Amino acid sequence: MKDEYYMKIALKLAQKGIGHVSPNPLVGAVIVKEDRIIGRGYHERYGGNHAEVSALKNAAQDVAGSTLYVTLEPCCHEGKTPPCIDSITKHKIARVVIGTVDSNPLVSCQGIKYLQSCGIEVKTGVLERECRDLNEVFFHFMEKKLPFVTIKYAQTLDGRIATATGQSQWISSDASLKFTHKLRAQHDAILVGAGTVIKDNPELTVRLVRGRNPLRIIVASALNIPEKSKVLQNLSQTKTIIATIKKSSDPQFRRLTNIGAEVITIAANKQGTVDLKNLLKILAKRNISSILVEGGAQIITSVLINNLANRLVTVIAPKILGKGIEAVGDLKIRNLDLAKKLSIRKIVRSGEDIILDSRLI
Amino acid sequence: MKDEYYMKIALKLAQKGIGHVSPNPLVGAVIVKEDRIIGRGYHERYGGNHAEVSALKNAAQDVAGSTLYVTLEPCCHEGKTPPCIDSITKHKIARVVIGTVDSNPLVSCQGIKYLQSCGIEVKTGVLERECRDLNEVFFHFMEKKLPFVTIKYAQTLDGRIATATGQSQWISSDASLKFTHKLRAQHDAILVGAGTVIKDNPELTVRLVRGRNPLRIIVASALNIPEKSKVLQNLSQTKTIIATIKKSSDPQFRRLTNIGAEVITIAANKQGTVDLKNLLKILAKRNISSILVEGGAQIITSVLINNLANRLVTVIAPKILGKGIEAVGDLKIRNLDLAKKLSIRKIVRSGEDIILDSRLI
Repeated sequence: MKDEYYMKIALKLAQKGIGHVSPNPLVGAVIVKEDRIIGRGYHERYGGNHAEVSALKNAAQDVAGSTLYVTLEPCCHEGKTPPCIDSITKHKIARVVIGTVDSNPLVSCQGIKYLQSCGIEVKTGVLERECRDLNEVFFHFMEKKLPFVTIKYAQTLDGRIATATGQSQWISSDASLKFTHKLRAQHDAILVGAGTVIKDNPELTVRLVRGRNPLRIIVASALNIPEKSKVLQNLSQTKTIIATIKKSSDPQFRRLTNIGAEVITIAANKQGTVDLKNLLKILAKRNISSILVEGGAQIITSVLINNLANRLVTVIAPKILGKGIEAVGDLKIRNLDLAKKLSIRKIVRSGEDIILDSRLI
Repeated sequence: MKDEYYMKIALKLAQKGIGHVSPNPLVGAVIVKEDRIIGRGYHERYGGNHAEVSALKNAAQDVAGSTLYVTLEPCCHEGKTPPCIDSITKHKIARVVIGTVDSNPLVSCQGIKYLQSCGIEVKTGVLERECRDLNEVFFHFMEKKLPFVTIKYAQTLDGRIATATGQSQWISSDASLKFTHKLRAQHDAILVGAGTVIKDNPELTVRLVRGRNPLRIIVASALNIPEKSKVLQNLSQTKTIIATIKKSSDPQFRRLTNIGAEVITIAANKQGTVDLKNLLKILAKRNISSILVEGGAQIITSVLINNLANRLVTVIAPKILGKGIEAVGDLKIRNLDLAKKLSIRKIVRSGEDIILDSRLI
């Protein structure tokens, strides 16, 4: 129980890194001596100190003989920083309690063996579920070599994202818009379809909260994006990638490139549009570990039908619209038993709306 | 603060009458003397003792000089039982604290004046909102002379109530089915369209929980209900009313009457189907104060478009179905600002589902 208590504190610390460490994992660490916390640390930003090292540096007294709580297995490889296990042994830590082991093949389990060989007592799996959930993006990215994909949309209680004539602004409350910006800041990239750019002309930046702007990715198989679109502005602040099936010889390809967007050609799928899985693979290779899909219905449906979605964030506005446009189109499911199943992780009120945070299972 | 504390206890007591007192209001009462509760009571069943009288009867000691807390203004008219204000004055209660005044024109405010004229101190409006909410059905019924209408349906997270081919059983979890039966037991009547009877052949009774069976009302403009439908069975346990635009000379009218259903002719609306508002007025005259509309999409849409719904209970199953049948059809709303607005009162988890309990505003 004491181990869980301190691990919870380490988990809280880890969360402070959200939006700053990607594609690294979120990690928190606490050093405890004679039942008192004498050091705390977390991974603050990509390239910065690892949590264990931070905690050791911040320690208020000599850490020799103390217990180190860390949410993720300490690394044993030289990356942007020296391996953490060296710091741990050097500081004569007596016991290491680990939340979950690492999926990174460079780290996995080797750190634990090394610590044990140095005579350090190691316990693993304390609040493992919570520690894994905290880094679901990181683990997915490491294990699947694909970005973790979150679909987010706002719908009325009766499941509509727009009126029959396409009006969608604004279904949700101000509080939910702010929430969306926070969600953006927590992702490496935002992805929308060309239809959304043409119809809503969004900026796809983080404005209502503090946070970094994610990369903007537009799926535009036919490259039909107006050159004055807001996503083609402020390109010095944040890049825009346009995914198309057109070749670089296409005049529109060159026009968009000249404006400053990066246009990439992706092999077409059977329907003759951008193959989303291919696109995701390419993005993963560029260290994009998380993508927020913000619409429209066509892209959302494609992501779902291709089983590329991991998380669904649904803002439900307390409105009934009746006939209109639904977020999810035809998934070719004709039998209820074959419906895609989710687990609702969190329900929060957001102004007058509620937000459901679910995982595809 | 003390007054609110005791009123909360009275509110809790009142809730025990849910499903048993309709069309009477739910009422709870507490008698307090020298800061101790010496009597408790609630309106247990239609025709039974009123809450105040119950509390006075149950009092453990002499109530003279004590304070009576009651969620609703005590009645001053002779109904099924003698007026409560007589009991209060007779027992020499010194102070009466009232949650909310009554809407019943026979009661409203007259009880308070009478008590004051007898030298009793009266305070009103303690936890008024909660006390009014508790009896929202009763107040609506009294003020509008129409039943309080609750629409209930189960949908997937993407807003579908059935697959494109009409399969709807079962979208929701066992826990939610049980919840539906509980909801049925709390209503005077259930209402569905003929389509639901033909397609799903439901019993529309309370089986999964203890509780009374509500009246069954089938809207069947064309009287096209199979004679072997389950709603036409067990008619001795609970009545079935079929609302139609057909006259009693129609052969099917007589056949259904002969089986034991009550068939009533309602004037048609412009669309040539049963005019729902007319139907509700007739049901109100029969003391039906609350109706649970369980579907299908056509009836739900009609109830909404005619502004007859008061409450919406949405079971949301954690599933994504894609193209299918939506609960709410065309409401002729083409502008988001004109969407029907709701207030989400309660969010509860029900097995793997969540249930949103909202009010139309």
